[in-house]
Amino acid sequence: MSVPQFKEIRRTYGFDEVAIAPGVVTINPDQANIEFTIGEVTFPLPVLASAMDAVVSPAFALDMDKLGGLAVMNLEGVQTRYEDPDEVLCQVAQASPQELTALLQKIYSEPIRDNLIGERVRQIKEKGARCAVAITPASTKRLAPIAMEAGADILVVQSTVTTARHISKSYKGLIFSELLETVKAPVIVGNCVSYDATLELMETGIHGILVGVGPGAACTTREVVGVGVPQVTATLDCAEAREENYRRTGRYVSVITDGGIRTGGDLCKAFASGADAVMLGTPLAQAKEAPGQGYNWGMAATHPALPRGTRIRVGTKGSLRQILLGPSSVSDGTQNLIGALQVSMGMVGAFTIRDMHNAELIIAPAIKTEGKVFQMLQQG
Amino acid sequence: MSVPQFKEIRRTYGFDEVAIAPGVVTINPDQANIEFTIGEVTFPLPVLASAMDAVVSPAFALDMDKLGGLAVMNLEGVQTRYEDPDEVLCQVAQASPQELTALLQKIYSEPIRDNLIGERVRQIKEKGARCAVAITPASTKRLAPIAMEAGADILVVQSTVTTARHISKSYKGLIFSELLETVKAPVIVGNCVSYDATLELMETGIHGILVGVGPGAACTTREVVGVGVPQVTATLDCAEAREENYRRTGRYVSVITDGGIRTGGDLCKAFASGADAVMLGTPLAQAKEAPGQGYNWGMAATHPALPRGTRIRVGTKGSLRQILLGPSSVSDGTQNLIGALQVSMGMVGAFTIRDMHNAELIIAPAIKTEGKVFQMLQQG
Amino acid sequence: MSVPQFKEIRRTYGFDEVAIAPGVVTINPDQANIEFTIGEVTFPLPVLASAMDAVVSPAFALDMDKLGGLAVMNLEGVQTRYEDPDEVLCQVAQASPQELTALLQKIYSEPIRDNLIGERVRQIKEKGARCAVAITPASTKRLAPIAMEAGADILVVQSTVTTARHISKSYKGLIFSELLETVKAPVIVGNCVSYDATLELMETGIHGILVGVGPGAACTTREVVGVGVPQVTATLDCAEAREENYRRTGRYVSVITDGGIRTGGDLCKAFASGADAVMLGTPLAQAKEAPGQGYNWGMAATHPALPRGTRIRVGTKGSLRQILLGPSSVSDGTQNLIGALQVSMGMVGAFTIRDMHNAELIIAPAIKTEGKVFQMLQQG
Amino acid sequence: MSVPQFKEIRRTYGFDEVAIAPGVVTINPDQANIEFTIGEVTFPLPVLASAMDAVVSPAFALDMDKLGGLAVMNLEGVQTRYEDPDEVLCQVAQASPQELTALLQKIYSEPIRDNLIGERVRQIKEKGARCAVAITPASTKRLAPIAMEAGADILVVQSTVTTARHISKSYKGLIFSELLETVKAPVIVGNCVSYDATLELMETGIHGILVGVGPGAACTTREVVGVGVPQVTATLDCAEAREENYRRTGRYVSVITDGGIRTGGDLCKAFASGADAVMLGTPLAQAKEAPGQGYNWGMAATHPALPRGTRIRVGTKGSLRQILLGPSSVSDGTQNLIGALQVSMGMVGAFTIRDMHNAELIIAPAIKTEGKVFQMLQQG
Repeated sequence: MSVPQFKEIRRTYGFDEVAIAPGVVTINPDQANIEFTIGEVTFPLPVLASAMDAVVSPAFALDMDKLGGLAVMNLEGVQTRYEDPDEVLCQVAQASPQELTALLQKIYSEPIRDNLIGERVRQIKEKGARCAVAITPASTKRLAPIAMEAGADILVVQSTVTTARHISKSYKGLIFSELLETVKAPVIVGNCVSYDATLELMETGIHGILVGVGPGAACTTREVVGVGVPQVTATLDCAEAREENYRRTGRYVSVITDGGIRTGGDLCKAFASGADAVMLGTPLAQAKEAPGQGYNWGMAATHPALPRGTRIRVGTKGSLRQILLGPSSVSDGTQNLIGALQVSMGMVGAFTIRDMHNAELIIAPAIKTEGKVFQMLQQG
Repeated sequence: MSVPQFKEIRRTYGFDEVAIAPGVVTINPDQANIEFTIGEVTFPLPVLASAMDAVVSPAFALDMDKLGGLAVMNLEGVQTRYEDPDEVLCQVAQASPQELTALLQKIYSEPIRDNLIGERVRQIKEKGARCAVAITPASTKRLAPIAMEAGADILVVQSTVTTARHISKSYKGLIFSELLETVKAPVIVGNCVSYDATLELMETGIHGILVGVGPGAACTTREVVGVGVPQVTATLDCAEAREENYRRTGRYVSVITDGGIRTGGDLCKAFASGADAVMLGTPLAQAKEAPGQGYNWGMAATHPALPRGTRIRVGTKGSLRQILLGPSSVSDGTQNLIGALQVSMGMVGAFTIRDMHNAELIIAPAIKTEGKVFQMLQQG
Repeated sequence: MSVPQFKEIRRTYGFDEVAIAPGVVTINPDQANIEFTIGEVTFPLPVLASAMDAVVSPAFALDMDKLGGLAVMNLEGVQTRYEDPDEVLCQVAQASPQELTALLQKIYSEPIRDNLIGERVRQIKEKGARCAVAITPASTKRLAPIAMEAGADILVVQSTVTTARHISKSYKGLIFSELLETVKAPVIVGNCVSYDATLELMETGIHGILVGVGPGAACTTREVVGVGVPQVTATLDCAEAREENYRRTGRYVSVITDGGIRTGGDLCKAFASGADAVMLGTPLAQAKEAPGQGYNWGMAATHPALPRGTRIRVGTKGSLRQILLGPSSVSDGTQNLIGALQVSMGMVGAFTIRDMHNAELIIAPAIKTEGKVFQMLQQG
Repeated sequence: MSVPQFKEIRRTYGFDEVAIAPGVVTINPDQANIEFTIGEVTFPLPVLASAMDAVVSPAFALDMDKLGGLAVMNLEGVQTRYEDPDEVLCQVAQASPQELTALLQKIYSEPIRDNLIGERVRQIKEKGARCAVAITPASTKRLAPIAMEAGADILVVQSTVTTARHISKSYKGLIFSELLETVKAPVIVGNCVSYDATLELMETGIHGILVGVGPGAACTTREVVGVGVPQVTATLDCAEAREENYRRTGRYVSVITDGGIRTGGDLCKAFASGADAVMLGTPLAQAKEAPGQGYNWGMAATHPALPRGTRIRVGTKGSLRQILLGPSSVSDGTQNLIGALQVSMGMVGAFTIRDMHNAELIIAPAIKTEGKVFQMLQQG
């Protein structure tokens, strides 16, 4: 019984395991203020579109901007490797499951073309929309200047796990404090999931962090390499790092929960866990406007030697406006995500996202799920 | 390991996760007294029928009264919007899944007609039965006087989450202490799920509270907005608020568990968790006498922009008498719910519902369930 | 967070949630002594056959005796209501699911015939086998003398929940200390699941208790009335009562785990939880010799107003000898249950059942199960 | 509530219930050193192939050696009972499920032929590869000398549960300290799962232990005899024993997690739990080079009276090189297991396996699994 312990392991939680408890005061949903600010920039909606090729194209970025959110374009995907990315996206949509991984590996072995980086940024900027771009840490020194020069407003430095201290033989690790001196725009870094790593990153002077390793529907990082932290615990821990950093420095660095959000319920729980904004992949890949044509896949799915994700069929569920702002014609939580957030804030009595951070969270496994399995089995 | 905590989250429990332990003394079931009193009114059965359009019509209210329970009629549903509600109910029953949500949204956009409120109440009162009516907080000031004047005996003020302090721009929040001065009848308020919110509501002088946010079979509040508390924990917490209020004021305010009860086992666990009575939706929608014709749906399913529920097929399982009083011809706990309560009280050694509040509850996940999935899979 | 608590609820465990850890010393299985003693009587096998009509007939009792175990015959079932019970058993086996509950209710409304009680006991005794009979508490005063006079060796007083203090309007509760003065044979009482109730029963002077409320495969007590305690916790608690009673009185009263055992693994866990013997229903109903013809049902399934169980298809898996003593031709734990116990005792290093009581138990959910669901789904 | 406890039971964890948290420092995967040393011998890969007839033949041992791992040949299986084992393996692959257990029992009742032991060892040694052999404790005294004389490099003494103190009537238990005096080669002993048993075994002077009772995909030990410990807890406990033994004696004895590893994620979690190496069965049985022809079964499946395992269809997934070293053409974690380990170490910031032992482990149930059940159900 009292066996000496090799290490302690603590319990963590994902969206399906928690729920929000209503407040002692309730407010009308129309009183909930959901604005999101990063650096000096304020967005009407606290929603970012994931830097996935099936989600964000230049056209989609314009649609997202019109509705009040922010799309992040992947600068190392098909948009910057191909003059005509739609043709390539079409191939992915039509590939059979058997040939898919090999096809992805081949498509993403094509080199990135510097001229296309500028062109894609300009396609967004020339329509007056805000432009955010995502680059991996290893390519940031080379690609970031091109994107910034073309007019990008926000830089996202993103890989599966990003820390302030990366050690490599082949290249000198990216020093974020140095990067921030050259990039005169808000910089968001990710992904991370822990208190310590977040605190170190925030201390470099960055403006936001992306929270999430392994939770996305199109991601198999946890199956393949065993690494991953459920999103509720990850968001709670990174939010606490934000508070600590704020107490120490007076700078408020945004926490953006990225991955694993499928419904309005999940989205609301992310904010109740401490998120300032959310980044959505699959829910937006389901929009008519999404370039993925009813499919979604992550960048890790294209790794030449160790793919950690796959193409999933997400279907087309409605217009981007309907998915974000409603009205919803379904009752499963996949439409009117912003309306859901406001109703949730009303039940909690939260006037602002900061108030929502104080909502009571409870551990409440989704037992109904089991019932649904039955139901489905019974219906044959 | 010892990460600073952004917030504490506590474990909560639903019906499927707990069981009742038998007592050290047992009694014969016929010795169990199950009466329920609200205000000055005593009912032979501690069972209320939910204010759902698929459950309570004036005719159903009479049937319920005859058996000793209390039906609550929804004053903002089809009964008060349509001269002939049966025709509309028939449309819902016959709608395809694709057209359903839009149909519900359309049906419930028809205005409430004041004259029908009086008429429905009189249909119940003229047969000598007790009449309870449900109104949302925002409409209570307007509709409650009409219903009370027509003779309603009990007023239920109900919305998904109701608190003693609601803040709104567009209308002045309902002040329950003021309402109680004008309504000379027992007032039941809901729904709520927490100790603090319940205590505040009880302090206003109301006579009963409805416990439950998100648990019903026809409800998807938790999926859509992330809010919900499993019923065992919710009932335990609200029951403790009742005790505290009683210790402070000497007034005993009834706790009524509303939603999520599908079987006799669930019903018994509600009482063992501290309920004075239960409100049933789906189990009574399965009665031959129910107006829903084998279907059920919640009022939240009709929301124009954010429906949080859907029509579910519940089937017709027997007469209302058989469902409540037996005899049961099935062994799955869906018939003879009152008989089940008495047998359960016998095993626990509880002479009264108050004794049942002292029953030992244990955490005991419904593992058999898993076995049943197998069985179903094996049977194909 | 720090909400005042209405009551404490503790976690309990069933067979599927625990496992046995191997010992620091191992022994050869042939060194494990598994004898079971009740009163002055010692049995080679620590296995009783359940007092269910689908399990024990007089012929089955003889088979069980030959192998070294003990069959308990139900004195209030078909054997004592019908001259030719086989015909009735055949009807049950052939009934459709729709007509089943009504048929069981009808079959068991036939009166018990005193002359058949004596006859069934004599059918067992005249072949030289030991005879154990089961009677409900309410009928014990009337039926026990008849059975004892006919030669029954062991009396089992059994109902779903039995306590030393039962309160009834209609009949004076059975006083076990008085019963023991008239019955000059070992008396086993059940069922119970708690430390306190067990201790009170043991103090009356009885010789064994049956542990288990709600766990059996053919039982739906938990679904219907919410009452039930998982078998590992129930056995642990009753075993601790046995120890306490032994410390106080020097009398060792046997603990017999009854219900919920489907495999050799479950059986071994019962002993590791503190059982002195086990009572098996479904595993023995699967024997070629069982009267149920591939089906099983509990006595609670026949209740006229509140049936709490149903007929389940268990199939015929092998001879009684093969099921108990092997050799096993399958690898799923349903054959050679005694061989399994001895191998388990070998891994634990337990020379006796008392040693097995000291085995380390761990909480280890049966995750493989989930994998099996997949497998089954994948295989279609 | 405060019931006296018969025994304490502690929670244990398996691979599906935990995940690895990324580190505060990350490194490039190519900087991860994964060498494994046993005794004086160092292997490029920390992977052993299980002593199962469907996994290791002499030819497979050569393939494994070429890639840098170590195959363990079973000296009591078909290789030493049959001149032509391929024919027998073919029979197993072609047997129907109904006839399988009986067929295995028959095949393994053929006697072991001493001359074949030497021949199989020589088949491996004459190609210059390292040769490891597995023998049960009861046969070690007889068979080990033959194998060592033929040139075996490493001796594995293996049974389901092995302790330093085994008690038997029929033969004198194996004394490991005595064995080590005669065998001049590294000795690995298993299987064990507890701190105490591991510590006692390590004190005898052995060089490595195999961790795992009951976790393998082809094993039903837990179902049949109730015994088994989930692999994460087992590895953690045995790793702590290794540390304690090292503190006391200065000798570092290797801990090898054996069984239950199906994916790269599982493998990485084994190392994060404290393993120095892993032993793989099913993942390698899926190699084209494996003798099992797409099937796998454990030795316990062949027991004449109590089979505790069965043949499972594992399929053929790729070449041994692809499974171990990639590149992977799938995203489910079944290929490029070594690449996965290096990527995982990169995310954790672990330069060596010893660093990996310090990785943070979290409890994070595989909830996605449930989603997958849905998905599968929905896809029909």
